[in-house]
Amino acid sequence: MAIALITLAAGQGTRMNSDLPKVLHQVGRAPLVAHALAAGRALEPETVIVVAGHGADLVKRAVGKIDPEAEIVLQEEQLGTGHAVAQALPRLDGFDGRVIVLYGDTPFIRPETLERLAASDAAVTVLGFEAADPGRYGRLVARGNALDRIVEFKDASDEERAITLCNSGVIACDAVLLTELVAGLSNENAAGEYYLTDIVAAARERGLTAEVVTCDEAETLGINTRAELARAEALFQERMRAEAQENGVTMVDPATVWFALDTYIGRDVVIGPNVVFGPGVTIESGATIEAFCHLEGCHISRGATVGPFARLRPGAELAEDVHIGNFVEVKNSILAEGVKVGHLTYLGDADIGEHTNIGAGTVTCNYDGVMKHRTTIGANAFIGSDTMLVAPVTVGDGALTGSGSVITKDVPAEAIAIERAEQVNRPGLAKKLFAKLCAEKERRLKKA
Amino acid sequence: MAIALITLAAGQGTRMNSDLPKVLHQVGRAPLVAHALAAGRALEPETVIVVAGHGADLVKRAVGKIDPEAEIVLQEEQLGTGHAVAQALPRLDGFDGRVIVLYGDTPFIRPETLERLAASDAAVTVLGFEAADPGRYGRLVARGNALDRIVEFKDASDEERAITLCNSGVIACDAVLLTELVAGLSNENAAGEYYLTDIVAAARERGLTAEVVTCDEAETLGINTRAELARAEALFQERMRAEAQENGVTMVDPATVWFALDTYIGRDVVIGPNVVFGPGVTIESGATIEAFCHLEGCHISRGATVGPFARLRPGAELAEDVHIGNFVEVKNSILAEGVKVGHLTYLGDADIGEHTNIGAGTVTCNYDGVMKHRTTIGANAFIGSDTMLVAPVTVGDGALTGSGSVITKDVPAEAIAIERAEQVNRPGLAKKLFAKLCAEKERRLKKA
Amino acid sequence: MAIALITLAAGQGTRMNSDLPKVLHQVGRAPLVAHALAAGRALEPETVIVVAGHGADLVKRAVGKIDPEAEIVLQEEQLGTGHAVAQALPRLDGFDGRVIVLYGDTPFIRPETLERLAASDAAVTVLGFEAADPGRYGRLVARGNALDRIVEFKDASDEERAITLCNSGVIACDAVLLTELVAGLSNENAAGEYYLTDIVAAARERGLTAEVVTCDEAETLGINTRAELARAEALFQERMRAEAQENGVTMVDPATVWFALDTYIGRDVVIGPNVVFGPGVTIESGATIEAFCHLEGCHISRGATVGPFARLRPGAELAEDVHIGNFVEVKNSILAEGVKVGHLTYLGDADIGEHTNIGAGTVTCNYDGVMKHRTTIGANAFIGSDTMLVAPVTVGDGALTGSGSVITKDVPAEAIAIERAEQVNRPGLAKKLFAKLCAEKERRLKKA
Repeated sequence: MAIALITLAAGQGTRMNSDLPKVLHQVGRAPLVAHALAAGRALEPETVIVVAGHGADLVKRAVGKIDPEAEIVLQEEQLGTGHAVAQALPRLDGFDGRVIVLYGDTPFIRPETLERLAASDAAVTVLGFEAADPGRYGRLVARGNALDRIVEFKDASDEERAITLCNSGVIACDAVLLTELVAGLSNENAAGEYYLTDIVAAARERGLTAEVVTCDEAETLGINTRAELARAEALFQERMRAEAQENGVTMVDPATVWFALDTYIGRDVVIGPNVVFGPGVTIESGATIEAFCHLEGCHISRGATVGPFARLRPGAELAEDVHIGNFVEVKNSILAEGVKVGHLTYLGDADIGEHTNIGAGTVTCNYDGVMKHRTTIGANAFIGSDTMLVAPVTVGDGALTGSGSVITKDVPAEAIAIERAEQVNRPGLAKKLFAKLCAEKERRLKKA
Repeated sequence: MAIALITLAAGQGTRMNSDLPKVLHQVGRAPLVAHALAAGRALEPETVIVVAGHGADLVKRAVGKIDPEAEIVLQEEQLGTGHAVAQALPRLDGFDGRVIVLYGDTPFIRPETLERLAASDAAVTVLGFEAADPGRYGRLVARGNALDRIVEFKDASDEERAITLCNSGVIACDAVLLTELVAGLSNENAAGEYYLTDIVAAARERGLTAEVVTCDEAETLGINTRAELARAEALFQERMRAEAQENGVTMVDPATVWFALDTYIGRDVVIGPNVVFGPGVTIESGATIEAFCHLEGCHISRGATVGPFARLRPGAELAEDVHIGNFVEVKNSILAEGVKVGHLTYLGDADIGEHTNIGAGTVTCNYDGVMKHRTTIGANAFIGSDTMLVAPVTVGDGALTGSGSVITKDVPAEAIAIERAEQVNRPGLAKKLFAKLCAEKERRLKKA
Repeated sequence: MAIALITLAAGQGTRMNSDLPKVLHQVGRAPLVAHALAAGRALEPETVIVVAGHGADLVKRAVGKIDPEAEIVLQEEQLGTGHAVAQALPRLDGFDGRVIVLYGDTPFIRPETLERLAASDAAVTVLGFEAADPGRYGRLVARGNALDRIVEFKDASDEERAITLCNSGVIACDAVLLTELVAGLSNENAAGEYYLTDIVAAARERGLTAEVVTCDEAETLGINTRAELARAEALFQERMRAEAQENGVTMVDPATVWFALDTYIGRDVVIGPNVVFGPGVTIESGATIEAFCHLEGCHISRGATVGPFARLRPGAELAEDVHIGNFVEVKNSILAEGVKVGHLTYLGDADIGEHTNIGAGTVTCNYDGVMKHRTTIGANAFIGSDTMLVAPVTVGDGALTGSGSVITKDVPAEAIAIERAEQVNRPGLAKKLFAKLCAEKERRLKKA
């Protein structure tokens, strides 16, 4: 059956104490709403609608990057979940499949769960969960899967409060019916809001069936405070770490490896303590990531070793057996097999050939204050320590640059390039200079 | 009523296994005694006396920095808490307010608790706590707030041992009475020590009232071992993290952000994993601190981004939208709005104007071996990579320094300054050199 | 009595999902088998035999480094523990002491436990443990220390399953008897394997005594998955941290200090958050290790301060009061008392005299592309920022190198050495250059 998703993402999240709309706070380096959309996209829906409200411009821009085909509708006033869905429904005019309503601040729902929701053939299907501590959640009064009604905590009898099957708020309904039911919602309640869950009662009144599909409580975790955000991040990380271990990754201290949503790590990769993955990292089998690394948007091939204290930025591509050492930054650069960059180096916008050795303190001077330029270094070259490569510039295969040289002109293959003055030793002068400086210091101290 | 504080800080802390006096071990980058003094100072006491003993010189120096108006008295021999207080009392001659006796190794007492102690109008008031595991603590025999007596564990009956209200050792008493009671203390007990808590019995014998004021057990946590110190640090950090979250700070992994006692972080600041705050850091709203940063004595303004792998040392002041990148150290330097320092740089004792760009590998050579000197750079300047700025030196607005230049003379505004030899390319020489080196290596290997 | 050890290290560890043999996965930066061998070596055995199988070449090489006197025997097919021991026994021909059979994937057995096993005078002695959750472990049916028999879980009656004393698999037996009993083992069981533990029944059938020696369950922890490996690492770290605290080490956050098996840290050393120890580190009393340090194969003397963001590699020796600052790497270098290396420096293969100051951005250019060479710097020297020391090279006592100099020739004591061109200021040129670059950028943007 055709599916449409409506993702509610209009809330401010007052308790976040933030200017950022709640759904743009991040877990696994991706906005909360990206998690919900990713789960929903797994169902291959025909239409995806995001209802934005607070910070709608920011939400629109973010969703545009995450899921460019998603439509954004604006809920100008926040008058409840039913009202939010009502803003989206006109976009579904003519659609006669099933609509699933998700929440942009609920990042952990699994695609499998949504598939079960979609597959339900009841008129209205509600996602429920067995709550460890039901607290003030709405209760689902059901016999087996048949959902009789939803009771809000404040309206529940003692007997109903004893129910532990709770309402997640996620709901599935046929599109045409949903439009009718939402149109009939009332805001005559304490909060003066239109509640989407009231459609269950309305459907039941019409003699239609309602069903409950259940999932693990953790899937329904919503985020309202920074502390809850941190706990969600911890939960996300725990899963990613366990999955990596199962895939044959060794982490010396898993609690100190932070994954992004899309991190991919191959078998027999060893990761030291304190490694941070930003988005877009792939690591092939058998690579080693030492402690204290920060990796983002990069690819690391088999047998490569990185760190400690290395930073790979977007566009860093390391071929097999590349070695990146300490205090090294690589950005938007392609390093061929066996390249070694041991110490204190910045490589930006560079192409480096096989087995080339980059000396300590090397910098690709890729920015002239206005534009960025590219550095090209051939294979088997030897870049002396503290070489400045003023881009655009090319160093040929097998060439060598002298330590401390500023290379502004291309270097032919197999040539030595050197930019250097003569070393002058001036005997005895250091002794005199220090004596003078000490005297000067004394003088100043006396004066002060 | 006028308040005087006596803080006992004479103990060696044998179980710390340390040469450092116990009260100088740190939590939140401040000595334990600083925490106790800070809580006490909140009461605006007339007099603050610290009783030092073991390592008295070190304690005196440390207290002199923390709380310059505190008086130090020496307890030459450690003959018990009563004896310690006796050393302090002569300093309170003529003072007729209330004395509160605190402990330098008990860092978590809250000012609100001390205020309640101070406000009690009993002759003697003891701070008690409901112990989760009363163990060998002294028990407070009380009816309501009325304290009947303190029973040491070893002297307690089974019935008394069942009491969970325990003695923290913190005590408040009118100054004149305290002097009389302490003078009457005896050391006829197993340890041969003068116990301050014995004044409760003495007061009661005189028919005076004693009262108990209670606090949370965590407030009374004393520190005796390195493991307890680590637990106290963990407790301190937990509180600071929760407070920051409530104030609208996002920490990707709160357990890896370490605060100092005085860290201040604004709303919507995002902090990556592994950030260490030393004393004296303030961060304005909306700044971003990436992973692996070490910050101390610095100010970071709105919209600034720092790290990963950045170190800001005392006197680093970052205006709005400053960007500090990786492997960058800034010390005692003022960076105006929009300054960018991306990579591998040391800025010490520098003033840098708006929107200036500092190239990778730049160093302010601020030390001549004897004295420190200042570097001044104007606005909109472009400091080429690997520029050495030999201070004192000034670079004007809109000026540019060539990559690899050692700048020893001032650079006028809008000028280009360059210190560089000619690049010479020597064709074919690299090939010859490597062949020669390989032959030499072979020769050496054969020889060996 | 003479002791021989047989360590079983032939398993593949399928559930590790790894190409590396299981016993070579690491805890505390040492292979699992190294832990087992270290515990066994404490008994001063006459002979140590390691039975290798999967990845035998790798295991052989690793054991050769860990314990060069250990003999390796090959178990070509993995036909059970009894079969594995059978491969080793021919090497014990003529040995009439006691044999202890250990497991290479069980790293935590204490020497004290093995001593008790060795001291047992029963014909066969089995190491047992009280299991918190006995699960599917084999049960030890015993009266006091007298072991009646071992019952596999699947063969156990309900009564036997209620037993919580479980079989660790570690066994001790007189060599001659062991050879006889192993020769009599049968593989007529579901798995078709020869089980070593069956020797207990065989011994009992002969009317011989069997005994159980017990140890803590944690000692018998075997490792089968990456998650269990991570838990073993955590357990190992917990012990090392607690031990360090007892020895008078302060760790701000013990959970973020990672020890190697042989790390030694003196009293009153203070360690910041996030410090990683590789093998071979010793730190004397009173040194300070700041946050974010990575230390391996180095010695740090009393009063030295290291970090934050420092990396010491094998062969780094820091004398008293040496200061290593941020973004500094030291490898195979000896730094005399009071040397200061504050910022962004690589020292490799260097000797540095007392109280010498190394400026920011200094590099010892120790590699010419083929061989490594040594740099020697005297006492009280001042190496200017960004000095390149092209080894082999010597800088004398009290000498100074100018900032940005490439030093290729020796510098006499008390001399100033400088390699530098003249600084040229070209007025107004920066303004013109930027105007030109901006125009060029505009042109390109239009074109694109």
